[in-house]
Amino acid sequence: MRLTEIRIAGFGGQGVILSAIILGKAASIYENGFATMTQNFGPEARGGACSAQLVVSDSPVLYPYTTQPDIMVIMSQEAYNRFAPELKPGGMLLVEEDLVRVSNLNQDKKVYSIPATRLAEELGKRMVLNSVMVGFFTAVTQLLSADAVRKAVADSVPPSFRELNLKAFEKGYEYGLNTKAGAPPALEEAEYAQE
Amino acid sequence: MRLTEIRIAGFGGQGVILSAIILGKAASIYENGFATMTQNFGPEARGGACSAQLVVSDSPVLYPYTTQPDIMVIMSQEAYNRFAPELKPGGMLLVEEDLVRVSNLNQDKKVYSIPATRLAEELGKRMVLNSVMVGFFTAVTQLLSADAVRKAVADSVPPSFRELNLKAFEKGYEYGLNTKAGAPPALEEAEYAQE
Repeated sequence: MRLTEIRIAGFGGQGVILSAIILGKAASIYENGFATMTQNFGPEARGGACSAQLVVSDSPVLYPYTTQPDIMVIMSQEAYNRFAPELKPGGMLLVEEDLVRVSNLNQDKKVYSIPATRLAEELGKRMVLNSVMVGFFTAVTQLLSADAVRKAVADSVPPSFRELNLKAFEKGYEYGLNTKAGAPPALEEAEYAQE
Repeated sequence: MRLTEIRIAGFGGQGVILSAIILGKAASIYENGFATMTQNFGPEARGGACSAQLVVSDSPVLYPYTTQPDIMVIMSQEAYNRFAPELKPGGMLLVEEDLVRVSNLNQDKKVYSIPATRLAEELGKRMVLNSVMVGFFTAVTQLLSADAVRKAVADSVPPSFRELNLKAFEKGYEYGLNTKAGAPPALEEAEYAQE
């Protein structure tokens, strides 16, 4: 696990911070690595926007701010407009496909989209959206082992919601494996599909 | 609200991260300031230790790492041993008095202690310990308005636990006002009381 900078962003209630905590725990507690999670509260938080920065690494993280994230998980249009330009060339962009219209992304970025909110609603609780997204992240990025993330999910949600969140994780994970198995949509196709 | 660095530390399950989020929200969303919360996951997290760094300010926070915190909230002996030496001269140390033995603190630090776990248990739920501590913090530090923090508490806990957490906040807040009104125990007295 080499040093990887990740930005997760959306709006309040989507579990942005919890997603970052789950991935941070998976990297550190269950994969013997290190992770740092940084959350900014500022004017944008007053508008309901929510964003977390996560840095994971094999060795202690000396600088916790992400400058050019390798991976972005974007769950609102506002977050897309604000953060997408910072994605590293060659970086991976994971989006909630019903909430984000991908455009103006003019470099060699890989875009993976998932209707995470709809998949969560199929499970009966929209609030497990973040576990769907974490499962998708795990399959698509291959940064962390699925088992480590599963344990971190189980460990980070209230016991009464554990089973549901693990189901949500599997749903996102499978969706991600299928996305990887088929050709992931190239940027032009993704744009086209959203026109 | 001038730039203030805060370290909150204890063990998993005490609500360390939630406390930092509540104070960060109070500073930014309800007091029009800025805040940054950083959480490290590493070997110590594997042992159950938990720590958050919070920087609050009138203006955007450019560097999120605390170097010499102005204020520390310490809820375990392990956290005390590890972090207390970093407290700024003249800084404030808030401790959970049944869990932390204050010693070897050889500068002009102000120590305020509260049996937060016992107070939470009196309310019937040990898990509201963090809201007791946040109330105590609010009264003792006078960094944020009580109203801003109350709103942030209400906004950050599940609706079904809102009332209980607000009660816990008031309990800690009153305890802090009383501590401030009486002479806060000088370090020697605090040490003596714990011998």
